[in-house]
Amino acid sequence: MSSFLSGRFSGIEAYVPGEQPQDRSYVKLNTNESPYPPSPGVLAAINSAEVARLNLYPDPDTRSAALAISGALGLGPENIILGNGSDELLAFAFQAFCDAKTPAVYADITYGFYSVYARINCVESRVLPLDDTLRLVPSDYYGAGGTVFIANPNSPTGRAVPLAGIEAIIRGNPGNVVVVDEAYAAFGAESAVPLIAKYDNLIVVHTMSKSKNLAGARVGYAMARSELIADLNTMKFSFNPYNMNRLSLLAAEAAINDSDYYEECVAKIVSSRERAVLALYGRMFDVLPSRANFLFAKPSFGSGRDYYLGLKERGVLVRHLPQERIKDYVRITIGTDEQMDALLAATDDMMGKNR
Amino acid sequence: MSSFLSGRFSGIEAYVPGEQPQDRSYVKLNTNESPYPPSPGVLAAINSAEVARLNLYPDPDTRSAALAISGALGLGPENIILGNGSDELLAFAFQAFCDAKTPAVYADITYGFYSVYARINCVESRVLPLDDTLRLVPSDYYGAGGTVFIANPNSPTGRAVPLAGIEAIIRGNPGNVVVVDEAYAAFGAESAVPLIAKYDNLIVVHTMSKSKNLAGARVGYAMARSELIADLNTMKFSFNPYNMNRLSLLAAEAAINDSDYYEECVAKIVSSRERAVLALYGRMFDVLPSRANFLFAKPSFGSGRDYYLGLKERGVLVRHLPQERIKDYVRITIGTDEQMDALLAATDDMMGKNR
Repeated sequence: MSSFLSGRFSGIEAYVPGEQPQDRSYVKLNTNESPYPPSPGVLAAINSAEVARLNLYPDPDTRSAALAISGALGLGPENIILGNGSDELLAFAFQAFCDAKTPAVYADITYGFYSVYARINCVESRVLPLDDTLRLVPSDYYGAGGTVFIANPNSPTGRAVPLAGIEAIIRGNPGNVVVVDEAYAAFGAESAVPLIAKYDNLIVVHTMSKSKNLAGARVGYAMARSELIADLNTMKFSFNPYNMNRLSLLAAEAAINDSDYYEECVAKIVSSRERAVLALYGRMFDVLPSRANFLFAKPSFGSGRDYYLGLKERGVLVRHLPQERIKDYVRITIGTDEQMDALLAATDDMMGKNR
Repeated sequence: MSSFLSGRFSGIEAYVPGEQPQDRSYVKLNTNESPYPPSPGVLAAINSAEVARLNLYPDPDTRSAALAISGALGLGPENIILGNGSDELLAFAFQAFCDAKTPAVYADITYGFYSVYARINCVESRVLPLDDTLRLVPSDYYGAGGTVFIANPNSPTGRAVPLAGIEAIIRGNPGNVVVVDEAYAAFGAESAVPLIAKYDNLIVVHTMSKSKNLAGARVGYAMARSELIADLNTMKFSFNPYNMNRLSLLAAEAAINDSDYYEECVAKIVSSRERAVLALYGRMFDVLPSRANFLFAKPSFGSGRDYYLGLKERGVLVRHLPQERIKDYVRITIGTDEQMDALLAATDDMMGKNR
């Protein structure tokens, strides 16, 4: 920290993304990436003719990609804004819709970035605890008195709130915006997108990092009624009008047109997930029912941290979060069956089994 | 605007980027892009093997590109942060170093985004007028009482402050950060990078959009002593840790290693600029002495707006800015000689000449 940093940020702790060690190669199950490459259409779209055009700015209004994505979801281009990853759009939502009078409302166990966004925007947080089974109770959120942020499915738990619960929360907060962060919804949760036409206070956020195999391209999008999208555009055009680079826009549009490929990838991941759940149950782990591309699991031996460290030693990376309520768990990204087998072999090795 | 937008943004006017019309093809001299494609190394770096890896997150610490760029400039990786275009880094600097007690200080005629950043961060602006010849007077900035933002060369004027003037401003503000935005410096201004080791309050910002032919890839970087870079990283990791996508990082690193190619492009642009200056002088235009890849020129007939509209009608796009002090001018990006000839032909047509 320099002596010049504004005093309002003193002691701020930034978000810490999952580790990306460069020292050796790991079976990387710690940042919820897809184990599968982008679709053939994406590979074709990013060609040398397009690279040769990188001297030109991208379209700041991202018209072509916005039309393709919104159309595929039954919305109009006025209902969507693209972001440099969904994180950027979440940041814009905190900035636009939280202030001294409007706190941010979110769960105690959820995406770790929400508390960071509240802090960087100098707004209060109203933190609502999940229940004893790490479930979100919709009625806790009625009349929340602030802008609500819900990850559905939740991370790191993997649990999802049924659509009726989400709708009840939206209805229960007519004076405030409800942001539903559906980064992982494609793996088994009900999407709130069909509710957009019905409610003026709903924003649904998607990412192409997980179910569209494009974490490296940084593409997210937020969907809402046009008035809310206009507000998010005010933030964007006051921050970084050219937030989407040319090649990621091409990738996004191509990915939307390759839905069969991605549905197949999602089906494979869901199948690997169910297989991994059974294998971990067989080893006496507690595993929360997951609707995402990861599992939240408590080992039958030792602490979550010991399990994380033991796996890392054996070349398998998972994510351990130090928060008190969840420190016994680790979050395990679903990779290929082969990657999950490597996790299980490392687990068996730790457990002293030789099967 | 929705009823949910925080009251602190009421009436906010976002930045308006240069138009990117999709209706017809123009000779596009309005957004200071390079007319030349990226270097062969960039074309080679973005290959199908890399596109196939887009399912994986980029390195949030951007180690490889940071090492290459900082090394080429005689700095260490702790002295650099990469941004999704230099706009993102300017936004972080406003956020980190301006607040209720520390206004933003900048010229009346300069990059239009500075006032937008001040507004979105709800900080005061201290606006210092350029002199009658649209020159920045360094002594006006001594003891500026806030965080100083200087575009050098300035946009839209193209004028540059000599390094001695910049150093005097840095020395004259020991208690505040001075940000020198060198987006256009490669086209003829003295860079302040060599001063970084000497001053703890200097940040120099570069972009690859202009002299590295990569506007479409969105790559900027800020350089400073490590404490200031740490502050900017606090902003980045509280906003968007994965702000740089994989392909743009590859492009950035490849571009740094192709410096001969880019020096040749810059030389061609400087030569086209000098040729265009003479041609406009010949048509009795007032042209400010430019150190950038654009000219700021006042036509000898009609208003700046009429000239802009007349050119647009004839298929040539330049930028007209409506501010009172500069409304007689247009800003003309330097393209290829052929593009400049098209501008001159359209100009002659407007002037009723048939040469």
